[in-house]
Amino acid sequence: MKDSSPVGTTDHVEATRTPTKSPSISSRSLICSAINETRAASHIARQAGQRVGLVPTMGALHEGHLSLVRAARTQSDFVIVSIFVNPLQFGPKEDLSNYPRTFERDRALLEKEGVDLIFAPSDAEMYPRGAVTYVNVEGLSERLDGLSRPGHFRGVTTVVSKLFHIAEPDKAFFGQKDAAQVAIIKRMVRDLDMAVEIVVCPIVREPDGLAMSSRNAYLDPYQRKQALVLSRALNRVQELFEGGEREARLLIAAGEEVFRGEPAVRLDYVSVVDRDSLEPLEQAESGALLAVAAYVGATRLIDNALLGS
Amino acid sequence: MKDSSPVGTTDHVEATRTPTKSPSISSRSLICSAINETRAASHIARQAGQRVGLVPTMGALHEGHLSLVRAARTQSDFVIVSIFVNPLQFGPKEDLSNYPRTFERDRALLEKEGVDLIFAPSDAEMYPRGAVTYVNVEGLSERLDGLSRPGHFRGVTTVVSKLFHIAEPDKAFFGQKDAAQVAIIKRMVRDLDMAVEIVVCPIVREPDGLAMSSRNAYLDPYQRKQALVLSRALNRVQELFEGGEREARLLIAAGEEVFRGEPAVRLDYVSVVDRDSLEPLEQAESGALLAVAAYVGATRLIDNALLGS
Repeated sequence: MKDSSPVGTTDHVEATRTPTKSPSISSRSLICSAINETRAASHIARQAGQRVGLVPTMGALHEGHLSLVRAARTQSDFVIVSIFVNPLQFGPKEDLSNYPRTFERDRALLEKEGVDLIFAPSDAEMYPRGAVTYVNVEGLSERLDGLSRPGHFRGVTTVVSKLFHIAEPDKAFFGQKDAAQVAIIKRMVRDLDMAVEIVVCPIVREPDGLAMSSRNAYLDPYQRKQALVLSRALNRVQELFEGGEREARLLIAAGEEVFRGEPAVRLDYVSVVDRDSLEPLEQAESGALLAVAAYVGATRLIDNALLGS
Repeated sequence: MKDSSPVGTTDHVEATRTPTKSPSISSRSLICSAINETRAASHIARQAGQRVGLVPTMGALHEGHLSLVRAARTQSDFVIVSIFVNPLQFGPKEDLSNYPRTFERDRALLEKEGVDLIFAPSDAEMYPRGAVTYVNVEGLSERLDGLSRPGHFRGVTTVVSKLFHIAEPDKAFFGQKDAAQVAIIKRMVRDLDMAVEIVVCPIVREPDGLAMSSRNAYLDPYQRKQALVLSRALNRVQELFEGGEREARLLIAAGEEVFRGEPAVRLDYVSVVDRDSLEPLEQAESGALLAVAAYVGATRLIDNALLGS
């Protein structure tokens, strides 16, 4: 294994490698760009009685991702992190080509966390010519972000299916930050009888409240301040809910009102929905999902909270 | 395990059970209606180093199915046969409610073949309330039978995905009789990186040439004779191909001509297509798929041949 392997090359799987157990020792992670080698490595780990944990990412890692890796480290013996900027989940006018790609930095962070294998395939490895199969969670995929990002969740569920088939994890770790994604992936796993447990980890925030996101890197210092309106709106609605307000339309109106105080930010939605079905609620209840999405400049940001928690 | 367990009840998985290796000894097959028990049984077999083979069926078994079971018996150590009349692959005007259901007979046949586990779930076990996830092989699913049976192949790929996730087979066995289904499932497995090998077994025919099908049971004695027009048409086209004809439109016209000799049979299509992509060919080539579908009375029958083989 060479230190300098770029994305796209493959280090061969060492069948006898003992995975690092302690995150305190920073050691080399195996880098795989090939599907069959990743599958083989997972298979070997499982044959040795190890529990396999998968953290799917698009790279540009931040503390949110690292919290997932740490959960995977705690709950599994062999931790696989995938880094793949999935073209299928970007719309034609979205930021696929600009999406931050920071592989060497990501790799260093993951090695520090004691990740066993980084799966970093090329687009051609994941979507060879002629690929035409899609997994779709109908209905749910058209709600929340699915409304303004048609095809987005179909892209997510298709790539996540593939990653599950490749890495064959016992558990897969996702962030609550992408609440709609979490609901949709849980539904897919249940509906298709996939033998994987979905573990959801809490949102990680900057000290001032901004939810961590790879897309925060797009924000200039002014926008960075404006972006705080998302968490402010969530807090305002949460306060009202805790004060006893249950009418979803009033809670939503209060959230929208907070956005009017930051006119440079273009609101996409404030929604109160069932956290599993993503269906809009008329009466908010404890555990309901309060979700917001807004454009700060050209950057689309999302955030959410579970009411009453 | 009771001899008389109807479909819908579940015998508990016996962890220590040694699967029958010899098909000559007819022994009890484990009957499972529960997904988690079927998965557990497969897992135990795999943990013991056994290769797991899956034969998905809708029951009403005939020699075609049994040839798949025998192939699975030869190529695997633990053979699972699923029996599930999948509502998702039937159109609203199709024969779901009339589809032949012969569980006790099927069970006896499978026990004679030394099948280890029969997975016979209920509709509610496979499609609980709220299930909304579908797997679709776009393009291919709209060709051949997909044209006259919209949604059919989406139903097939969705249920087969589920069966693969439940039984986690090393190999799954399908009949060449359903040639479009074979092409679509192979495409799905490749596209979604499913860790299963698809084994395709030849069409099994009655002595007079009629391809075996559970739907042949619908035919009255007159229709049974008329149905021979399908294999006659295939033979006629195959002769022309072997005589050197390569123009698909002429080969198709010759097949259609044979159907005109049996006016009680309503032709759906005679097609010459690429066996993998199912795209129509202008020039037939060796290995191309020649497929026919026709209604004999209300019964839709299909048949096919690979040209030059």
